[in-house]
Amino acid sequence: MSKRDFLSVTDLSRHEIDDLLELSARAKGKRPGQVLAGKTLGLLFFEPSLRTRVSFEVAMVQLGGHCINLSRDDLYELEPQEQAIMDGAAEEHVKDAARTLSRYVDALGIRAASRTGSWDKDRQELLVRSYAKHASVPVINLETCVEHPCQAIADLLTMRENLISLKGRKLTLTWCTHPEPKPLGATHSVLTLAAMMGMDVTLAHPLGFEVDDAVMQKSKAMASESGGSVRVINDPIEAAKGAEVIYARSWASIRHWEDGERQAMIKRSLQHWRVDSTLMGTTKNAFLMQPLPVRRNVVATDEVLDGPRSLIYEQAANRTHVQKALLMQLLK
Amino acid sequence: MSKRDFLSVTDLSRHEIDDLLELSARAKGKRPGQVLAGKTLGLLFFEPSLRTRVSFEVAMVQLGGHCINLSRDDLYELEPQEQAIMDGAAEEHVKDAARTLSRYVDALGIRAASRTGSWDKDRQELLVRSYAKHASVPVINLETCVEHPCQAIADLLTMRENLISLKGRKLTLTWCTHPEPKPLGATHSVLTLAAMMGMDVTLAHPLGFEVDDAVMQKSKAMASESGGSVRVINDPIEAAKGAEVIYARSWASIRHWEDGERQAMIKRSLQHWRVDSTLMGTTKNAFLMQPLPVRRNVVATDEVLDGPRSLIYEQAANRTHVQKALLMQLLK
Amino acid sequence: MSKRDFLSVTDLSRHEIDDLLELSARAKGKRPGQVLAGKTLGLLFFEPSLRTRVSFEVAMVQLGGHCINLSRDDLYELEPQEQAIMDGAAEEHVKDAARTLSRYVDALGIRAASRTGSWDKDRQELLVRSYAKHASVPVINLETCVEHPCQAIADLLTMRENLISLKGRKLTLTWCTHPEPKPLGATHSVLTLAAMMGMDVTLAHPLGFEVDDAVMQKSKAMASESGGSVRVINDPIEAAKGAEVIYARSWASIRHWEDGERQAMIKRSLQHWRVDSTLMGTTKNAFLMQPLPVRRNVVATDEVLDGPRSLIYEQAANRTHVQKALLMQLLK
Repeated sequence: MSKRDFLSVTDLSRHEIDDLLELSARAKGKRPGQVLAGKTLGLLFFEPSLRTRVSFEVAMVQLGGHCINLSRDDLYELEPQEQAIMDGAAEEHVKDAARTLSRYVDALGIRAASRTGSWDKDRQELLVRSYAKHASVPVINLETCVEHPCQAIADLLTMRENLISLKGRKLTLTWCTHPEPKPLGATHSVLTLAAMMGMDVTLAHPLGFEVDDAVMQKSKAMASESGGSVRVINDPIEAAKGAEVIYARSWASIRHWEDGERQAMIKRSLQHWRVDSTLMGTTKNAFLMQPLPVRRNVVATDEVLDGPRSLIYEQAANRTHVQKALLMQLLK
Repeated sequence: MSKRDFLSVTDLSRHEIDDLLELSARAKGKRPGQVLAGKTLGLLFFEPSLRTRVSFEVAMVQLGGHCINLSRDDLYELEPQEQAIMDGAAEEHVKDAARTLSRYVDALGIRAASRTGSWDKDRQELLVRSYAKHASVPVINLETCVEHPCQAIADLLTMRENLISLKGRKLTLTWCTHPEPKPLGATHSVLTLAAMMGMDVTLAHPLGFEVDDAVMQKSKAMASESGGSVRVINDPIEAAKGAEVIYARSWASIRHWEDGERQAMIKRSLQHWRVDSTLMGTTKNAFLMQPLPVRRNVVATDEVLDGPRSLIYEQAANRTHVQKALLMQLLK
Repeated sequence: MSKRDFLSVTDLSRHEIDDLLELSARAKGKRPGQVLAGKTLGLLFFEPSLRTRVSFEVAMVQLGGHCINLSRDDLYELEPQEQAIMDGAAEEHVKDAARTLSRYVDALGIRAASRTGSWDKDRQELLVRSYAKHASVPVINLETCVEHPCQAIADLLTMRENLISLKGRKLTLTWCTHPEPKPLGATHSVLTLAAMMGMDVTLAHPLGFEVDDAVMQKSKAMASESGGSVRVINDPIEAAKGAEVIYARSWASIRHWEDGERQAMIKRSLQHWRVDSTLMGTTKNAFLMQPLPVRRNVVATDEVLDGPRSLIYEQAANRTHVQKALLMQLLK
């Protein structure tokens, strides 16, 4: 029996996503018991994490299982290239780490979302894909530069709880200014998943902050199949008009991926790309969503983040519940 | 129902402390069973920890619960100021971290005891107080510059076990030389708690090492209510005379809080402020207490630390038991 | 009742090793149940670890117990010298850490395998031996410069599973080139244990890479008692002839222990000391063993590491099973 990984939202069919959301809703309402007793999930973090780390550990505990956490400092430097002559800094090949861990744990989750080279290189998700290739247990993407599927599934559950139905509903996914160049994972996964569910998605960003072309094409294809739509607007206020959900998120410019200074310079003229009550006022009384952490009063104002339409903590809380459902499906 | 935090020894009434000690003694004698099954405690350490970290994790395990440990490296840099425009280094606001974690775990423990600014600033315990304000689950102070209540409760249990009754008993809490400027948390919490229990407390320290004025006033007020007393003596041998417990601890000078070099210079003339057999010889066959870690042969000599009246490991061991009692009360 | 430590393979008698292997084989076939429920194992890592860390945690989980993991960053700097005047960098004495932890956990595992001084100093295993001396609970060596007994026991189980009987079987333990100077722990423990089991051991290394003299003498004495043999050959191909197991491992030169540059320079002329299909072709269809991590295409080629006679992942997997057996014996 072949193992299932969860590296991308498109690893699941539309039908499987519906099932996962149903299961998540049930796992939220009532504790499913010790269904993963004796099972272990290994979590590998190559960057800091609060929500992902804690929500997965709590999910395993609630199901009777156990998490083993490994951070960059615990681990040897890893070589992801096949056939490498390993006389450099890397002490261990991903192949060996993946095969070894597969003998110890029942599933692996990996976060590796830092910029490490060109966009053409980073979009290959080399570390996570290499783990998935060599591990004999399911591998879960805990965020790369390209996808953050667990966040997007939790966001979908949150929208479903608040909008009730998703088809034909208006989601504006808007770029926001931010002091740091952030990975595109959450943006891509939410875009694709909303398109897959038949939502009318408006992607708003300044010129030069286009998302990955392949992800855009895939999302448009999914929208046309599901009866949804995807459009791009380069003005934040225009994009917000009539929205039922504003999803605020910053991401780095792919064009200037390797040039952090250039990114910072460009952003200085983009301070107005933030979510505040003026922008929210142009929407159709939209909910505000944002995948934490958030730079308050930069990405969005305290007023809207702490306002009655904010769902930011619901999104975070739903991480536990969708991950319980995911783990039950992957480890059953 | 409002949540209870445990940030200061004065968060508990005298009656509640008596109850906690009773429960601790029972939890020490016999394992209370899986009373916290399915409960999780999140521990956040912004400084190293051995006893606090391990004793809390063991306490949760013995009660059937689970600890999730987060250290500085796991976490995003946090912003504690309200209304901050977060365009600096801090990636996440304490408000958001506290509210998010409250959706995942059943209680939070936080250690943040480093000097970060002036004494007037550090005595506000900004990080821990901000977590407590925004979290909807109980928050436990695992040591700040101002208080270390879990240590003090464990010390109280240790004194109670060895002195049998505490009222009217003579405790000398004595400053000791140390290469590093240490926080005042343990000193303050032990002083206040001993006064609350009606002990006759002698605080011994060189001139310039006065404790926080508000803490001193509060302790004196508690002593007069409980029938105990608090006095200050600036000579170590004089202060030790007739003591039934010598409690050795170093702390930084509040006057020179921001000036580490000045602190080191002053201490060079204070090498005689250490606990040795000569000092112990002037006491009424006193027990020796000290909250580990200890700089051996600087703070106190091997001879007295390893001697028959030393209670240092009993203090450490009692951490587990008082924390089991505390967790049972906070999470019941 | 005195506690048992596991610091060296020679802490166990031949009879006890046979028992441990039997128990390991049974613990591998079938989960032994919650025999360590309520027990905690403290793991202290002063260097990175993947296999040791995860295999011990999984072992405890499978037995119903719990691991508490502490890494260098969690801990205070430790003083191992007796009677030290602790006015330097070390914040805590090993004595106090060991005695404190003994009040919290049921056993301790410690990895401290870095070069810290001269070979004469490092071969004393000061940190681990000091923990063992002062702890009142069993201490397990998780790798020092001198021994890596858990690795060697797992390797022994792997050989036993594949060779069926060990007495009189031909093991060639061969030095390999490596960019870093590695500790001798695995080499020493495997050499001694194979000699103890009556294997015919060929130790292959370039001149200047002799193992510790005391370990060699002890291994020869054990071989003569068990009917095995130990010989040294300074040519990799000659040493491999007729071998039934090739065990590849690099280690630093004891002669130049403190001189990393000299080590690197010497190795430049030793590139041919690696395991490839030519070398394997001179053996008696030998199994290939190597204690991960491995520098692929430096220590050994992909071809042999991924070939049908490679046991590298079996060795890693067996860590869990021998450690379950060990923990059951130490903590029963």
